[in-house]
Amino acid sequence: MKIQGQAYRTIWLAQDGWRVCVIDQTRLPFRFETVTLSSSEAAAEAIRVMVVRGAPLIGATAAYGVALAMRADPSDPALEAALALLAATRPTAVNLHWALGRMRDRLAGLTPEDRSAVAYGEAAAICDEDVALCRAIGGHGLELIRAIASQRPAGKAVNILTHCNAGWLATVDWGTALAPIYLAHDAGIPVHVWVDETRPRNQGAALTAFELGAHGVPHTVIADNAGGHLMQLGEVDMVIVGTDRTTATGDVANKIGTYLKALAAHDNGVPFYVALPSPTIDWSLSDGLRDIPIEERSAREVTHLSGVGEDGEVRTFRLLAPGSNAANPAFDVTPARLVTGLITERGVAPASAEGLAKLFPERAAGAAN
Amino acid sequence: MKIQGQAYRTIWLAQDGWRVCVIDQTRLPFRFETVTLSSSEAAAEAIRVMVVRGAPLIGATAAYGVALAMRADPSDPALEAALALLAATRPTAVNLHWALGRMRDRLAGLTPEDRSAVAYGEAAAICDEDVALCRAIGGHGLELIRAIASQRPAGKAVNILTHCNAGWLATVDWGTALAPIYLAHDAGIPVHVWVDETRPRNQGAALTAFELGAHGVPHTVIADNAGGHLMQLGEVDMVIVGTDRTTATGDVANKIGTYLKALAAHDNGVPFYVALPSPTIDWSLSDGLRDIPIEERSAREVTHLSGVGEDGEVRTFRLLAPGSNAANPAFDVTPARLVTGLITERGVAPASAEGLAKLFPERAAGAAN
Repeated sequence: MKIQGQAYRTIWLAQDGWRVCVIDQTRLPFRFETVTLSSSEAAAEAIRVMVVRGAPLIGATAAYGVALAMRADPSDPALEAALALLAATRPTAVNLHWALGRMRDRLAGLTPEDRSAVAYGEAAAICDEDVALCRAIGGHGLELIRAIASQRPAGKAVNILTHCNAGWLATVDWGTALAPIYLAHDAGIPVHVWVDETRPRNQGAALTAFELGAHGVPHTVIADNAGGHLMQLGEVDMVIVGTDRTTATGDVANKIGTYLKALAAHDNGVPFYVALPSPTIDWSLSDGLRDIPIEERSAREVTHLSGVGEDGEVRTFRLLAPGSNAANPAFDVTPARLVTGLITERGVAPASAEGLAKLFPERAAGAAN
Repeated sequence: MKIQGQAYRTIWLAQDGWRVCVIDQTRLPFRFETVTLSSSEAAAEAIRVMVVRGAPLIGATAAYGVALAMRADPSDPALEAALALLAATRPTAVNLHWALGRMRDRLAGLTPEDRSAVAYGEAAAICDEDVALCRAIGGHGLELIRAIASQRPAGKAVNILTHCNAGWLATVDWGTALAPIYLAHDAGIPVHVWVDETRPRNQGAALTAFELGAHGVPHTVIADNAGGHLMQLGEVDMVIVGTDRTTATGDVANKIGTYLKALAAHDNGVPFYVALPSPTIDWSLSDGLRDIPIEERSAREVTHLSGVGEDGEVRTFRLLAPGSNAANPAFDVTPARLVTGLITERGVAPASAEGLAKLFPERAAGAAN
């Protein structure tokens, strides 16, 4: 997608052919800056402090992190150390472990001298495949939007609510939840997006609003508290969110607060869709509430926030009086019963073991059920 | 209640016996400052810009606003002008109109020379009655907390989630939703409060956390997104919130986002209580979603936020990139079907026309049904 007229992916190789460039998403939307990663340690840190975020982009960055490690030292111990370092960065995102498993599978049997080149090739393949997955998700989601638009008066926008950022900044390109929206907008279907601010890190206000604005998609930022009210008023036609991890039975772990929007959508008869590339499915899990570990992040993300002051400088501010504690669970689990459909690269599946098995029979055969 | 060891109400007469003092709640929790109001215009402005907020305190401030107007000019036109000015400040809070109606009833039939003294007396009575109402609400809510505590292992805290600020800062003293919590804490029942941050104005993080901390009640601030997840984990034993307006049938208009917490409580079998003094009941309404006007506040409350920078100064900063719009509905309506009970000064009623009628037969007789 484009920023200031220039086409970008979220991760790419530097001119030198080995260092890895990413957009510093902690600086958006106030500053557009890129960071160049020269080591697996730098890649792990970029994931940990959320310079990169979003399940697919985390996976791609971890894959390149392994490649950087192999360029420095292609030995077996170095490979295992890099895999362990990168795996420890974020506990919830299944793509991270999927990407690292794929890198291990590809590299472990090779002689060390072959590993660096193969690792770079595999990381690039993971990126290209993610772009293709997202574009396919967009195509299937586009048809859902088109169907709703066909029932509206001509010219009346389809109102879509989204939570957090599952746009192209969360992937390598296109995005998951936002891919259908970009394709609908480009196809001339009038769409308007309600953008949940998404406290505590404000990825909706900071990233989703930024990328929608850069692409020219009409949108309005709202407090996370407002979505239920808008659904009660009939001002939301559908919800599309992303996911960090989905069980084989269709339970969805996504940014904290997603569950509340799913409840409100269910209570008001608003279709609630989750867009996901199939690597986000954890076929080994059957009960999201019981089985998916939820990352507890720093209380400082609740007590402090970054913004631009009147002098134009980006600064961090404290929101609470000293002496009050905060808790910060980063994800919640939306049970499959609240999900209208899962938009995958192979089509839209009911959120159930049967629905997913029909689209992915080769994976579901080995799933826990 | 106390701040830095000194007992306060939220509104009181100055030493001169006619000016009206309030705590500037826009400065909390970073600064404790009081504002002295010398005219009805100043009182109206204090309500409008939320120097004072919370339905009962708004009513009390409006009453004193009428008293200030009568001291300056006790004529019929001046009375009507003050009533109209104060009524236009906030559209949702029914206490505002209740208090102004009471002042008009008390003053309109008097000769102008009597009006000032009677107005001050009536405003003081409204304040004293509010304190008594809140204390009574606290007593009834205390019994609900005590019942939950009796089913816990000894010493295990009762976890109570609250949204926005319905504490003593929202009333004249004690609070509504927090009154039971203060009484339980003082009675030695271990309680812990999950404090919803309450975007966009952060009254939970700024005011509820501040007043709980000042009183020594254990509490943890969370993003508004987190409550559903905590309920799924069994970490919330009950929810108590306030209300700005309640229908005769038990529908509840409260701070935006309340409806989402009610849905989550219902989905997880967590009791959801609303604490309210009976002046908050609008006996003329029977359908909250249809009948209660919802205030749309400035988008700037979403796009900007105040905090303390590293230099210790309170500043306002911008959260969004330029070019993104925001919407800011301030309240939502929680249907009676999601409310476990209404904690009133006369006891706990089911959230229904029948439940309220049983506690308030003299009012319900004339209610719309």
